[in-house]
Amino acid sequence: MTDSSTHLPFLALAIEIATESVNLHQGGPFGAVIVRDGKALTTGTNRVTASNDPTAHAEIVAIRDACEILGTHQLTGCTIYCSCEPCPMCLGAIYWARPDAVYFAATRQDATQAGFDDSLIYEEIALSPANRQIPTQHLICPNATQPFEAWSRLDSKREY
Amino acid sequence: MTDSSTHLPFLALAIEIATESVNLHQGGPFGAVIVRDGKALTTGTNRVTASNDPTAHAEIVAIRDACEILGTHQLTGCTIYCSCEPCPMCLGAIYWARPDAVYFAATRQDATQAGFDDSLIYEEIALSPANRQIPTQHLICPNATQPFEAWSRLDSKREY
Repeated sequence: MTDSSTHLPFLALAIEIATESVNLHQGGPFGAVIVRDGKALTTGTNRVTASNDPTAHAEIVAIRDACEILGTHQLTGCTIYCSCEPCPMCLGAIYWARPDAVYFAATRQDATQAGFDDSLIYEEIALSPANRQIPTQHLICPNATQPFEAWSRLDSKREY
Repeated sequence: MTDSSTHLPFLALAIEIATESVNLHQGGPFGAVIVRDGKALTTGTNRVTASNDPTAHAEIVAIRDACEILGTHQLTGCTIYCSCEPCPMCLGAIYWARPDAVYFAATRQDATQAGFDDSLIYEEIALSPANRQIPTQHLICPNATQPFEAWSRLDSKREY
């Protein structure tokens, strides 16, 4: 993880596509590059407003494309380069995709300074549901664990 | 938030579609329903393995569909019902979509017991990047904030 000369060109690319995307009015100031075998496999820029999709952050766009190309839901053997520290949504997506490593340039504080909710969401996620800004409530349902029971009964399930 | 009789039918629907999806071998044991004006606008079930998309959790599927139907990246006026407490990725997506409220049935502990990484990811997100299981490193780039500078210079940008 220490030899930054391998990584800086991919971070520079993530920063470059982020800047270009802003200048072309295509979305927010974020870019991501997914690298496999030393080469860029996919890139992503923020497409939230362009595609009416609040989940279309640069990292998610790049992860979805990479998985489609590789024909799998896992990014083993890949490294993700982000122009900015991933927000909690994107960090969660990274954990589910399980790449080998993540590198980022700007920080969540830089994002906050530019007007984005990244730091707020990090703070909110650490709170118990009842204390969050978006009211979140756990309701007791008699059959709440029924889907998990069906899952545990299932033969030959594809885990993820 | 206290009259659960309004909410339990939508949670029951989320649980029902989650169970059905498992029994049909369509994906993991999770379901979500997005409600607007007292009616289900969209539903989502987990499609991670079916679509080779690690981000295709029930909530994300339902959020993307709802935004497409409404022609916006925001879910103001909507409520999200989840068969299980949203994972950090989905909770992040919920914060970016900004619905009015969230209700859930099973908990992250139930998900963990069924073999899913939800609790692990909650714990990892709270750590500083250097201490995480997926190696994550902040590298100093001279032009790290260039995309944000382009963004701040932009006239008539569409914020999100």
